[in-house]
Order: sequence, then structure tokens, then C-alpha cells
Amino acid sequence: MGVKVDIKNEMIRMAKRAKRASEELARLSTPVKNSILKNMARGILKRKKEILRANERDIKLAKKKGLSKALIDRLTLTLLRIRNMAKSLREVASLPDPVGRIMRTTRRPNGLVIKKVRVPIGVIAMIYEARPNVTVEASGLAFKSGNAIILKGGSEAQNSNLIITKILNGTKGLPENAIQLIGTTSRKAVKELLRLDDYIDLVIPRGGEGLIQMVRRESTIPVIAHAKGLCHTYVDRDANLDMAEEIVYNAKVQRPGVCNALETLLVHKDIAKKFLPRIIERLKEAGVEVRGCPKTKRIISQIKRANEIDWQTEYLNLVLSIKVVKGLAEALNHISRYGSGHSEAIITRNKRAAERFLKEVDASAVFVNASTRLNDGGEFGLGAEIGISTQKLHARGPMGLEELTTYKYLVYGKGQVRE
Amino acid sequence: MGVKVDIKNEMIRMAKRAKRASEELARLSTPVKNSILKNMARGILKRKKEILRANERDIKLAKKKGLSKALIDRLTLTLLRIRNMAKSLREVASLPDPVGRIMRTTRRPNGLVIKKVRVPIGVIAMIYEARPNVTVEASGLAFKSGNAIILKGGSEAQNSNLIITKILNGTKGLPENAIQLIGTTSRKAVKELLRLDDYIDLVIPRGGEGLIQMVRRESTIPVIAHAKGLCHTYVDRDANLDMAEEIVYNAKVQRPGVCNALETLLVHKDIAKKFLPRIIERLKEAGVEVRGCPKTKRIISQIKRANEIDWQTEYLNLVLSIKVVKGLAEALNHISRYGSGHSEAIITRNKRAAERFLKEVDASAVFVNASTRLNDGGEFGLGAEIGISTQKLHARGPMGLEELTTYKYLVYGKGQVRE
Repeated sequence: MGVKVDIKNEMIRMAKRAKRASEELARLSTPVKNSILKNMARGILKRKKEILRANERDIKLAKKKGLSKALIDRLTLTLLRIRNMAKSLREVASLPDPVGRIMRTTRRPNGLVIKKVRVPIGVIAMIYEARPNVTVEASGLAFKSGNAIILKGGSEAQNSNLIITKILNGTKGLPENAIQLIGTTSRKAVKELLRLDDYIDLVIPRGGEGLIQMVRRESTIPVIAHAKGLCHTYVDRDANLDMAEEIVYNAKVQRPGVCNALETLLVHKDIAKKFLPRIIERLKEAGVEVRGCPKTKRIISQIKRANEIDWQTEYLNLVLSIKVVKGLAEALNHISRYGSGHSEAIITRNKRAAERFLKEVDASAVFVNASTRLNDGGEFGLGAEIGISTQKLHARGPMGLEELTTYKYLVYGKGQVRE
Repeated sequence: MGVKVDIKNEMIRMAKRAKRASEELARLSTPVKNSILKNMARGILKRKKEILRANERDIKLAKKKGLSKALIDRLTLTLLRIRNMAKSLREVASLPDPVGRIMRTTRRPNGLVIKKVRVPIGVIAMIYEARPNVTVEASGLAFKSGNAIILKGGSEAQNSNLIITKILNGTKGLPENAIQLIGTTSRKAVKELLRLDDYIDLVIPRGGEGLIQMVRRESTIPVIAHAKGLCHTYVDRDANLDMAEEIVYNAKVQRPGVCNALETLLVHKDIAKKFLPRIIERLKEAGVEVRGCPKTKRIISQIKRANEIDWQTEYLNLVLSIKVVKGLAEALNHISRYGSGHSEAIITRNKRAAERFLKEVDASAVFVNASTRLNDGGEFGLGAEIGISTQKLHARGPMGLEELTTYKYLVYGKGQVRE
């Protein structure tokens, strides 16, 4: 009980500090913010050895706990990865500042002039997996967009995150408490935090379904979830099969552990006999385990059978499920039923099929003749991103600086009243 | 237990029906939607007597229960109010359709063409007070923006809402289940509904703080709250006092029961002696009860003392609290502490004071020399509104057709993959 009250009070104090910092942050000019970001990058590079030492402690503990190779890989920092952290801060410095941008100016018949102008959201809480680079990237993006941030990274990365946030906070000119890391690794702290809607304006959970569901259930603060990507690519009857092969291969193999990677391949029955042998052979060469529906197995028998669970699974790994479909309608149905609204693609030369697919698929990004891996802030020309929103409200798809702002209306009158 | 399971299943069935309807709605063309809206308006007018009869039953019950005069007034329909309902549907028909609008087209160096295009949100649940006109307006706006809507109006208006939604649903061409009213008045039904984030994309609660808090606590669906407006007007030392008088009078008296009406007046000490007597006299003539801080009472003694509770209260009535402040900084502090982020105004001829007020006040709309009553979709030129959002995410301030949409990215490739 006593401990619980302590944690609660600590979270309230932290949130109040963030709120005060956010007022200061909202007033910083763009050049000042950019110079602070560049100094953050310098600080990270200068103290890279300290970061590596802290990271080694995290890795040792993770190995002791027997965590998965994939998790340890995401947790591990190298000199190159630290240089990329610094680079990402400089990139954020070079991006245009959305704060203060006038989105629309209206002059009303009564003479009222109304400006809709971008302002920071205020205080953002971010809950994420054990990837120390996210600590840097999220801090940089939140700061540039004028927001205070409260970070809760995966407990496995706690030592790395502590030194990184210490370095960032040591940057000259950065308002106090602009970046705060939750010191405890307890879930209780997070649950208390999620009730503080008086001080915190937005929570971004990024991670597995369990985390997202917990945050949705517990939070009274608006949530923008960065949840799973169960992405499909449909190879239509009218596809260019060479192109289809390159796109499917890229979407599955180039980086299988991320949310915009391909998980289920849908293939039109009329081209299945021609297309499946070549793509399956190519994928197998790359170490991909292929699981197929009965029709797929009739063409290539030496593969595992895909079952209902497969259609529902985001493998995040070198596994691919394949289904042969009768046509576009069945592909759309399958995507509507199993897709997570993240990234979906069609490969076709048929304009009508492409237009129907674009119109009817409900996802953050719908691709024609391109890899789902391209659903990314950088690839879309939005600059760095804090993640890819799988929600429809406020931000959908890549969430960059602009999506970390809100707006207010500035109304200039000369005595106007409501008639 | 059995009843609870029944309600839960009923809500799931309703949400699934809405989801299916939303897919059909997303595909309707603008002319078809507009013609349906005009037919809805005709239906409302044609069956006005049935609406009035149902409404009389609601009013009788409300009077029996001893409900407040203000509530009964909001509940009551007249021929004029029914005509205004029909008019609002025709107005929505005349507004531009946001669905399908291209927000941005980008061509990337690799040749990818990316279109950011507006699409409906999907399924919206709206929980609101006993105002039958809101049933019509929310249905019209949701339909025009391509969304299915599930309505839960105040139980006092249930008979009126039943006949209104029946009439709307009788409109030829309207997809089945585009508009659904929760038949039961139980709060359990709402709580079950708020967990159905698999089918419902957005919940809009509109009403008192108790309702908003319940929805925030219970909902796993994203919420856009339409909560209270504790609005201030600050009369600066450099104000034109004639203008200040008109604006303050309008903001308080023109329609005191709404969220953008004035609740607390802040007056610069240097002009208090000159301004307070005239404005208080004028307000008293209009039947306003004035409560003042000690300094106000030193100037006009025959008023009630305002206490801490007054600064925190949204009266929604002919009551006004007044505080004399030392200057702009104290006014800003008071607003930061007690304001609800809805509508705030400064009356001044001093450009620097105005700019500081505009910059530092964190509210959906900040006014210079105008009445807070103008924070309204119609007045802002956005057309009809479903309400005024007091949240920062997705929609802030007046929430019209555009704010009832989201977007998706359509990506046109020629074989592009991620490098």
C-alpha cells in the first residue's frame, strides 16, 4: 500500500514536471531547438563508451535471463548504431518545424479573421520495447515538435536508457524535464501514469499485443497505438511475375522482424502454377519457411500446411504463409478478415483491379506494384518517424513531426459578437 | 448474469452490423448521399406530428420525474425546431464531401507516387444528452462523411429518438444499419459497447463530466470528448471599454446554457473602477447573478462573494464570477489553472498583449476582441458540427465533416522495393 502510494505520487510529480516543461518547450524558437538537437548528437558521440558499457550490462543480464536472439539483437548497441543515433538527431534538426505553421486562414463575412495554427500536443508518454535507439529518436522528435516526453522503455534496456537520457538531459539549453525516463521498471508505475489525463495529452504504446491491450484498457489518456502489422501481398492474375517475385521477396526477406514486412502471400489461382514454384524456391534459398493452403500444397507438396492460426499470425520472422485465391474478391475478403490495417499490396497490370484494391482495402497504406516495406516515414518523404500508427484517429501510418502536433484557432476580431 | 450476457451479445451484434454498413457507406457517391440527406429532411417534415407526439410523452415523463427546466427546454421539440432539424440535413447535403479528397500527392525520387486521401473513419458511437436535434444532426454528419453511427441519447429523450431514427432509417437508399439507436436506456449497454474496439473506431461522448469520465475510464475505443467549457474573457487595461461591454454581455447572456458561453470575467485593476460598474449594471438588468472577488466587491459591494468553487464552475446559467487581476500575467495564470481549454478571449487594443495571449493560452480557440460564443463550426465557416472537441488529438474545437474522416495513403509503384 505504502509503496503503491509512493509510486503514484512519484508519477504525479513526474507528470507535473513534464507539463511545466511543455509550456517552456512550446515557446522555443526553431533555431534554438535545432542547435540543441545538434548538441544532443554531439553529446551522444562524445560519451559513446559510457553508452556501450551500460549496454553491455543490459546484454549480460538479457543473456542470463535467456531472452531470445531477436530481442538481444534489437537491444544491442554497436559503434555504428550509436553513430546512427547521433545522425538521426541531426536529421531531425534538419527537418522543417511544424510548430507555428499556419494551416488555414479564413476571413468570415463578419470580418473575423481565423487562423488555424499548429501547436505542440503538450506532454507525450511513450511506452516501448527494449530498443535503446528509440529512446533517442522519440526524444528528438518530441523535442523538435515542442513536446515534453515521458519514456518507459523495455526493462531489458534500462541501463542503456538511463545513460542515454542522462546525456540528452545534459545538453545546454534543453529545458529541465523535457525528457524524463521512468526510473522504475515496474508495471504499476505505468498503470498509475495512464490515469494522469490532467497532465499527459497522449500515450504512444509501441510493441506487442499484450502491451497495447493493457494500455487501451488502463488509459484514460488518448492512445495512439503502434501495434502489429499483419501485411498481405496479393499477386493478381494480371501481374508481371518478374516484378511480383522481386516485390514479394523484398517484402518478406529484406527485414522480416518489422511491422511492414510481408506475412501472408495471396496468389490468383490462374497464375499459381507458374508463380508459386519460382517464388517458393527463391524464398527457401533465403531460409524462409513456407506454409501453404491445400491448393498451394497441390502445386508444391514439400511444404508445411498453413492453418487458421497462420492466417492470424504476425511471424516477424522468416516464415511465410501462402493462400491461393479464386480472384480479387476472395483476396479482399481475406485481407478484411485477417489484415491489421497496416500495409497491404496488390501486384497487377490491371488498372481496374488496382483501383478496386486501393479503394476497398482499409489500411494505413495500400500499395500497387510495390513492397509493403516502403510504408515508412523516410520512404514517404515525411522525415523521421516515431513509429507507424495502426489507429485511425489523429495519425495513421507513419507518425512524424507533424503528427506530433495539434492545432488551435487564433481568432482576430474587432468587436464581433454572436447574433 | 444472463441479462448481462444478453446485453453484451446484443451490443456485439449491433457493432458488427454497423461495421458491415460502414463498408457500404464508404462506397456511396456524393450525389447519392446528398439525395438521401434531402429525403431524410423530407421524411422528418412529413412525419412531424409523430415526432411531436413521441416528444410529448418524453416531456410528460420528464416533468413527472421533476427534471430541471433547462433540461426540459433542451428536450422539447416544437414545429420550428423540427423544421430546423430538416434544415440542418439539407445544409449537410450542401456541404462539400470530404471523402475521397486528396490531401497531398508526393512523387518520390524512386518514382513512387503517394496520395494521402481522406476516407471515412468507419463506425462512430455517440453518447449524448437529451437533445433530440442532436440525433438528427449527428446522423446527418456521420452519414455524409461515410460513417456508420451508433447513437445513445439521454434516456429522457428515448421516445423522440426512437421515432426520429425510425424515420431516418426509412429513407430510400440508406444502407441498412447506417444509423442505429441503442434501444435500451441501461448504462450496462454503454459499458459493453465501449469495449468493442474491434468494430467501433471512435466514441464521442458529449455531456457532463461524470459521463466523460466514465467513458474515458471504460473505453478501449479512441475517445474524442466534448466536455465542459469554462471560458474566460480578460478585459485588458488597453481595452476599448464599449467593445468590452458588448462582447462580455454577448458571451454571458446570448445563450448561457452552452459550452462556449462566458463563465469568469477577468478585469485589469487599472480599469476595474471604470468598467465594473457599467458591465455589472448591464448584466444585472439581464438577470445575471454576479459573484466577485474581494477587489470586485470593493468597487461594487452589493454582490455575492466569489470563492474557489466559483473559479472551478461551469455555471451554464445566468451566473458570472468576476476577478480583478494585476495584469496579463495573472490573467494567463488564472486561465491556465482554471480554464478547460475550450474558448478564451482577451479584449485589448495592445498588439503585444494580444499576441502574448494568443500564443500562451492553450485552448481550442483563442479570441482577440470577439465573443467566445463564436467558437462554432458555422461561425468558423466549417459548416455544421457534431460538437466542439475539448481534446487535442485528431479534432480540436468545432468538429465538422472533415474531422469525421481519417486518411489513408495510396501508393502507386512500378516494382519499387526497399533498399
